[in-house]
Amino acid sequence: MIVVVCSVVAEHNKKFLLVSEKKNEAEGKYGLPGGQLEHGETLEECAEREFKEETGYDAGEIELFTITHKPATQHGNSVIRFVYKTASAVISQRSPAELQTVWLDRDEIIALSQEGLLRGADVLDVLDATSKELTITIKTYKTISS
Amino acid sequence: MIVVVCSVVAEHNKKFLLVSEKKNEAEGKYGLPGGQLEHGETLEECAEREFKEETGYDAGEIELFTITHKPATQHGNSVIRFVYKTASAVISQRSPAELQTVWLDRDEIIALSQEGLLRGADVLDVLDATSKELTITIKTYKTISS
Repeated sequence: MIVVVCSVVAEHNKKFLLVSEKKNEAEGKYGLPGGQLEHGETLEECAEREFKEETGYDAGEIELFTITHKPATQHGNSVIRFVYKTASAVISQRSPAELQTVWLDRDEIIALSQEGLLRGADVLDVLDATSKELTITIKTYKTISS
Repeated sequence: MIVVVCSVVAEHNKKFLLVSEKKNEAEGKYGLPGGQLEHGETLEECAEREFKEETGYDAGEIELFTITHKPATQHGNSVIRFVYKTASAVISQRSPAELQTVWLDRDEIIALSQEGLLRGADVLDVLDATSKELTITIKTYKTISS
């Protein structure tokens, strides 16, 4: 199946916000907050919704900065991930969230990776890409048309 | 359903290569050569394969230059299109192709659009975007991993 997911990298005082996964084989691992695109929503709306659901925080102003693709996962999917970043997540207020969250710096995330506790082969690359300037424009066509 | 398609804009002497659609309600309309991403292939491989199948030409060297998204089409799909361009399509040799092809300049394509014979609300925008410089890096993870 073709799967499109949107994730958000939230950075604050050189720490990144990860979530503790609860699903199946990923339980106990840490990953970027995010999830699958739903019908009718834009990629940005998906990123904001999933971030809020999983972390309880408002994403604030988000910006797309990289895209990753795994053509064949172990689950038989082809997964395209649109990754947004925010430096303005509203962390003072928090709603109830689906997942446990943790703020970790890069070294702590590398340590998790070495222990096999990081979910997603692309997470470290993605975090490193946040410091690069890259502007991608996604044109969204809301009108119904073939 | 989430649908990911890859298209190729081939430009030669200020003309663009369009294909005459054969499917259902699109019959008789013109669109960019391209089609759906299949499991296991990269986005670039998809673009090259679809271009070859539909036009009979080898795409040559292709470069991603824009992405469009239609969150809700009339068929109930959410369609993300990765658009590549090539100026080096091998047009001297041609294999049998699935579709009829036509080389049209921008004015001719605008005329088609005005007659309702252009398939895809984003085609004109996409063609105009070919002249802009834009580098998007898609990281592809071939290894099987969650």
